[in-house]
Amino acid sequence: MDVIVSLCKRRGFIFQSSEIYGGTGSCWDYGPLGVELRNNIKRVWWRDFVHQRDDMVGLDASILMHPMVWKASGHLDHFTDPTSCGKKGTIGEARKFNLMFKTFMGPVEEDASVTYLRPETAQGIFVNFDNVLQSTRRKLPFGIAQIGKAFRNEITPGNFIFRSREFEQMEIEFFVNPHDRVDGRPADEAWHDRWIAECQAWFTRYGLAAEHVKLHEHARDELAHYAKRTVDLLYEFPMGWSELMGIANRTDFDLKQHAKFSGKSLTWFDEERKEHLVPFVIEPSAGVDRALLAFLLDAYREEEVRGEKRVVLRFHPELAPIKIAVLPLLKKRPEIVATCHDLRHRLTRRWLTLYDDTAAIGRLYRRQDEVGTPYCVTVDVKTVGDPEKGETGDGKVTIRERDTMQQIRVPIADLATVFARLLDAGTAWSEVATAYPRAEG
Amino acid sequence: MDVIVSLCKRRGFIFQSSEIYGGTGSCWDYGPLGVELRNNIKRVWWRDFVHQRDDMVGLDASILMHPMVWKASGHLDHFTDPTSCGKKGTIGEARKFNLMFKTFMGPVEEDASVTYLRPETAQGIFVNFDNVLQSTRRKLPFGIAQIGKAFRNEITPGNFIFRSREFEQMEIEFFVNPHDRVDGRPADEAWHDRWIAECQAWFTRYGLAAEHVKLHEHARDELAHYAKRTVDLLYEFPMGWSELMGIANRTDFDLKQHAKFSGKSLTWFDEERKEHLVPFVIEPSAGVDRALLAFLLDAYREEEVRGEKRVVLRFHPELAPIKIAVLPLLKKRPEIVATCHDLRHRLTRRWLTLYDDTAAIGRLYRRQDEVGTPYCVTVDVKTVGDPEKGETGDGKVTIRERDTMQQIRVPIADLATVFARLLDAGTAWSEVATAYPRAEG
Repeated sequence: MDVIVSLCKRRGFIFQSSEIYGGTGSCWDYGPLGVELRNNIKRVWWRDFVHQRDDMVGLDASILMHPMVWKASGHLDHFTDPTSCGKKGTIGEARKFNLMFKTFMGPVEEDASVTYLRPETAQGIFVNFDNVLQSTRRKLPFGIAQIGKAFRNEITPGNFIFRSREFEQMEIEFFVNPHDRVDGRPADEAWHDRWIAECQAWFTRYGLAAEHVKLHEHARDELAHYAKRTVDLLYEFPMGWSELMGIANRTDFDLKQHAKFSGKSLTWFDEERKEHLVPFVIEPSAGVDRALLAFLLDAYREEEVRGEKRVVLRFHPELAPIKIAVLPLLKKRPEIVATCHDLRHRLTRRWLTLYDDTAAIGRLYRRQDEVGTPYCVTVDVKTVGDPEKGETGDGKVTIRERDTMQQIRVPIADLATVFARLLDAGTAWSEVATAYPRAEG
Repeated sequence: MDVIVSLCKRRGFIFQSSEIYGGTGSCWDYGPLGVELRNNIKRVWWRDFVHQRDDMVGLDASILMHPMVWKASGHLDHFTDPTSCGKKGTIGEARKFNLMFKTFMGPVEEDASVTYLRPETAQGIFVNFDNVLQSTRRKLPFGIAQIGKAFRNEITPGNFIFRSREFEQMEIEFFVNPHDRVDGRPADEAWHDRWIAECQAWFTRYGLAAEHVKLHEHARDELAHYAKRTVDLLYEFPMGWSELMGIANRTDFDLKQHAKFSGKSLTWFDEERKEHLVPFVIEPSAGVDRALLAFLLDAYREEEVRGEKRVVLRFHPELAPIKIAVLPLLKKRPEIVATCHDLRHRLTRRWLTLYDDTAAIGRLYRRQDEVGTPYCVTVDVKTVGDPEKGETGDGKVTIRERDTMQQIRVPIADLATVFARLLDAGTAWSEVATAYPRAEG
């Protein structure tokens, strides 16, 4: 973990929040590469679980909500941890305290209403259930997905970004008709298993080794007060197997509680059975920060290449912060540099592309390996020719792939097509590379 | 404005936060279409100002920061508003109160440190200035961009999402060498004017009518304590000309304050002059919510078509929540429905595509007009043919454009290319449409 923390700071992935003031000890800031990695994780998750599905819509609720939300959800009464850190004069006296951050809505503190920073995004979905239903006319089963910040006043934040007091969630509340039967079983139970499989497949599709992920079935005494069944995906973090995400069957608990406390009906009308019913809810709940940490850890490799150590982040190309680096073999030649800038500008509209000329080519490759850039494009003398000698260039550049370190020689005119196959269509490097001659490494 | 508020709720753009509990009166939730519109605004802003520029990197700092940040920035002492709403017993006594939301970091309130929800994202950039410099080795001028939530305990939130207590900012801190001269003037002054022009161009490029945007130069007594000069972009909202965004010259105030309070050096080394200097900062600061409201208002049109009222949101295609709607002319024909589903799945990987069959085609078109979907694709009997009569289909579908309501007949095999031109390359409808025969309206 220390190696990752150090790499993250040095290369601009993750900094300690308010570091110049000694830090807060429990929050983290994402630097230029970190914010791109983070955005990519969120974008791919949203595309796969919202855009690509017929049974999902998105939502973005506010962090500050009406305090009654937390009374109804049970967080005001139950979201506590025991401690032995009591007040002065009561040392050793165990007491419970609430993990929610308290604040005051309305500018005059004495008159303001006490409210809380949401400890989970889920409740923003439940209180909007009827709004979404009215505006989209969805039929069960369907889900509402949300990505957003949540806050927990953890007693012992730690393990880098694994447990912090401010974090971001990617949550789905998937509403099913408990009277339906799916795969020959009650719909909520069947959909629970489907979601467990979907989530596990998603993490391995984007890079986690299958053997680093396993399921943990909550025992009866581990279950939250709202849950019928909960299964965690565990990842083998450096501190041991720990929760990557949870998939819970929250039953109809939340909708019923909010209906009770608000006096509003939160039901769905079953046209076939002609009855109003309260759906059951399957909740796949993942953390952006934990997902990012797992992807970072799993991507990290130290290799020996020609007797030297190479550090490489083998990110899935869709998650890699920078997709393409355009590098000049000789930065003294203005035609080479001009070609590089031209390529960067044309490529970066579709794929984040970086230009770097501040070192020799070998060093530039290592720098890109270390931050997980899947492809480098090198412009050299052969590309542009030598006007003084009357030599015209061949208009071809070298593409180097990060993991295999193979290099191919590709006409500039082909670049858009080649990268569309590699980065958008997900075509394997080996398949694309066979169409072009190998360049010397 | 009332018409927009009503449309936003009915079609799932924006809901009042915690509405079932009577709302908070000052925060808003974005529904299925609102979250897509919001994400599109953020994505396009990030692409244009971070990815496409050579002189910008991104950052994502935490909302909870060390309280000393707000002492150094001046927010603890100066971020106040006067009121005549005093405590009980002091009615009528004017006093000032701080607009920052207070909270307690650390779970036991008595022992916890008081901290604040950030009232602007800017300070997260300033305190990370040296981290970004060390990890990216940037030379002046360069900027750091950030999108994130901020919170202000406004006395009078209102005008829908225009002024809310929780909002999202898109901010850039652009660092320049004050000793440099650009366009024959001090670099900070020249860059200030460049950024004003860039921001104005950005808002008009994505849909705001030029005559609805104007500049407002802050008078000396309007300037914030840190500012040398500030220019606002005003938009003609229904309640009058109001601030859309501000572009301020914050000088070296913030970096110097944080250096003073933290004891850390926040300078840049000028290789040419061999001296450490504190850069000046130009800050283009926009709000996601205000931008979204302006785009909504400017896009809204009521038109008369064949004697009936048509409501249409003329969103720029890159901002439109749904890019393409796939509609069946007859949902009783399984081949038509199957073709629709197939098209939706193929198109939605690149462009958010929706399927709707819950009304007749005229009604379906109106529904899409009302939420700003630029293109509808209709599958009819001619597309799929009639197997019972031994008729094969022509494999062509109708594309209808939102603003002109023109319809063209396009082979299914061409759809990916046609939409890549319309939605990615920004080719005009009139240019694309000439290549295909008109279909009947």
